[in-house]
Amino acid sequence: MSNSELIEYAAASPEVRAVYDDIMATRGTDWVNNFWKALANDSKNLARIWGNIKQVMAHGALDPLTKELIYVAVSVTNGCRYCIASHGAAASAKGMTSAQFGELLAVIGLANETNRLAVAHDVPVDDRFL
Amino acid sequence: MSNSELIEYAAASPEVRAVYDDIMATRGTDWVNNFWKALANDSKNLARIWGNIKQVMAHGALDPLTKELIYVAVSVTNGCRYCIASHGAAASAKGMTSAQFGELLAVIGLANETNRLAVAHDVPVDDRFL
Amino acid sequence: MSNSELIEYAAASPEVRAVYDDIMATRGTDWVNNFWKALANDSKNLARIWGNIKQVMAHGALDPLTKELIYVAVSVTNGCRYCIASHGAAASAKGMTSAQFGELLAVIGLANETNRLAVAHDVPVDDRFL
Amino acid sequence: MSNSELIEYAAASPEVRAVYDDIMATRGTDWVNNFWKALANDSKNLARIWGNIKQVMAHGALDPLTKELIYVAVSVTNGCRYCIASHGAAASAKGMTSAQFGELLAVIGLANETNRLAVAHDVPVDDRFL
Amino acid sequence: MSNSELIEYAAASPEVRAVYDDIMATRGTDWVNNFWKALANDSKNLARIWGNIKQVMAHGALDPLTKELIYVAVSVTNGCRYCIASHGAAASAKGMTSAQFGELLAVIGLANETNRLAVAHDVPVDDRFL
Amino acid sequence: MSNSELIEYAAASPEVRAVYDDIMATRGTDWVNNFWKALANDSKNLARIWGNIKQVMAHGALDPLTKELIYVAVSVTNGCRYCIASHGAAASAKGMTSAQFGELLAVIGLANETNRLAVAHDVPVDDRFL
Repeated sequence: MSNSELIEYAAASPEVRAVYDDIMATRGTDWVNNFWKALANDSKNLARIWGNIKQVMAHGALDPLTKELIYVAVSVTNGCRYCIASHGAAASAKGMTSAQFGELLAVIGLANETNRLAVAHDVPVDDRFL
Repeated sequence: MSNSELIEYAAASPEVRAVYDDIMATRGTDWVNNFWKALANDSKNLARIWGNIKQVMAHGALDPLTKELIYVAVSVTNGCRYCIASHGAAASAKGMTSAQFGELLAVIGLANETNRLAVAHDVPVDDRFL
Repeated sequence: MSNSELIEYAAASPEVRAVYDDIMATRGTDWVNNFWKALANDSKNLARIWGNIKQVMAHGALDPLTKELIYVAVSVTNGCRYCIASHGAAASAKGMTSAQFGELLAVIGLANETNRLAVAHDVPVDDRFL
Repeated sequence: MSNSELIEYAAASPEVRAVYDDIMATRGTDWVNNFWKALANDSKNLARIWGNIKQVMAHGALDPLTKELIYVAVSVTNGCRYCIASHGAAASAKGMTSAQFGELLAVIGLANETNRLAVAHDVPVDDRFL
Repeated sequence: MSNSELIEYAAASPEVRAVYDDIMATRGTDWVNNFWKALANDSKNLARIWGNIKQVMAHGALDPLTKELIYVAVSVTNGCRYCIASHGAAASAKGMTSAQFGELLAVIGLANETNRLAVAHDVPVDDRFL
Repeated sequence: MSNSELIEYAAASPEVRAVYDDIMATRGTDWVNNFWKALANDSKNLARIWGNIKQVMAHGALDPLTKELIYVAVSVTNGCRYCIASHGAAASAKGMTSAQFGELLAVIGLANETNRLAVAHDVPVDDRFL
């Protein structure tokens, strides 16, 4: 659809540029990835989503790499090709090794399997888990 | 369905008991949770699934707590109530703090949101991510 | 919500009763299950959905039991507790054995696992499959 | 991501070649499809997943074609393009007719529809199904 | 798979042409989109699905634009690229503005987020909602 | 898990009370629903999510009722029982009639069906939709 064109910095409004500048400053990079250029078709939502990402993905009780692994786990489960590529790359940039990636996928795959087995059997939650 | 009844140790076949024993020995516990008691209706699959879990969830390039966080991320995304309860409890037992749990949910929620935005805009994968 | 109350035969309109009668006649039973009583809040949709089910689930190139197994596979994957119970019961009524149920679940679980692995690796479709 | 490159037989380690050999011997073919070449980036998981597939998809209480139909049903529901292509091809190779494929899709589609209607109405499970 | 080729009008059977004619007449267009050409591999299902669409998407208690917005919401949540494109185009043709599209996506994204938070916390339904 | 207990107003911290007060003021009600009481276990995320909801669900290019219908469509597709109940109730409070609810469900169900058919056939997007 026409409003999903990618908005480049040169063509962006001041509001959009302000978000792009903050993305680059926060990440220490000189470019923004396509996800933000697509969101920029709606500058209010661009600013809102970026504000959420900035707050949620910051270092906190969980380190940034662990957060990326969780992001990949959700993205694979939902089948979002773009998100797997972008957060997989982010995880690699934050130090994910090839062995860790292999184990990440193994856990994701197995969780998707056992989730269905638990549902299929309608397993009652153990008292100790309540 | 009748074959989803929970098979208790006392009523279990030798093959099922052998798996239960290995679960308890591996975990250092004296009980098995309902998921396994439901799977025990099919002893071959019980042994197969347990073999997978034992291999995949062992300490490796990723530590056991991180693996549980990933498990919870998948389970929440799939909406598996039992799995959220059991792997949430496992994460707590392995040291997950309340602050970490809050951040885990924040990442899961946001990833589910941005996954849909990326798909809705049909965002092309950046060359740098390929 | 109020329009999800279950409409019993005695309280049903003539249009709804006509569908209930056809369900019972087609199945050779003297009762209708709760799914239809909930749909009956909107008699036009009740008739439409029943018309679809009657056509699609009839004996054809696939036998009725195989169709029920497929129905269960979809229902487990979507996590629909009601649908797993009702189509699992239908499969049993059509001859599904306990061993077949075990294998059905094993395939469902494994497919859910490998689906994610294929997506995670963004595996290109082999030429021979096109 | 780099660890999703496809590992060809000539470039594979002995552990990977052993799995490829077993895949070809089990299937009576002289090639392996891309899914396994992607998994081969992690030889331990390659061997584990193949071991599961070999056990679960073997002839048993359900015949191999029925198992492929179930696999396709899960794959369509999850939206896994690769898996639909590969297991659709496997089903064809095992004798699925065009008419059967049409009915398979009809059941899958309708189950996805009624799953949502059952959830939307929060239909209570009938006593007879418990 | 071979039965997913697109059936053009010139190559279509009389039964398929009748559906194509009805689609064009109902929509006031001189072409049919690829979805129908793919379904046409199974003329019985083509007619059934078109009959459902024609009934459900007609003007009723909800106007046609609102119905398209709902269609897009489901399609984005399921990750169906074709359906997002086709129903997005249909919504635009029925008057959806760029601002409305932006808000539509914002609601879809946020609902996907809060759905997971509600499930993760296993929030009990408030009495007032029952 | 213990951090999913419901935090009542009387037991809430000043930060949580401030959000509760804003929820009630914005909605013109004297109570808050359980979703917020569960989120209140993590006051930072409570404030963040409420900020998003307040901005996204406000009257804009789409009216509040249409937004609730979209919310229900996503919630049904994801199978979130709590969200269906709460946003269904919100839609009713904003004027949704029983006939509109019936049509909403019909569109949701059918979209879930045709999404899978489009994916199963791997339908190429029509040039006119690009």
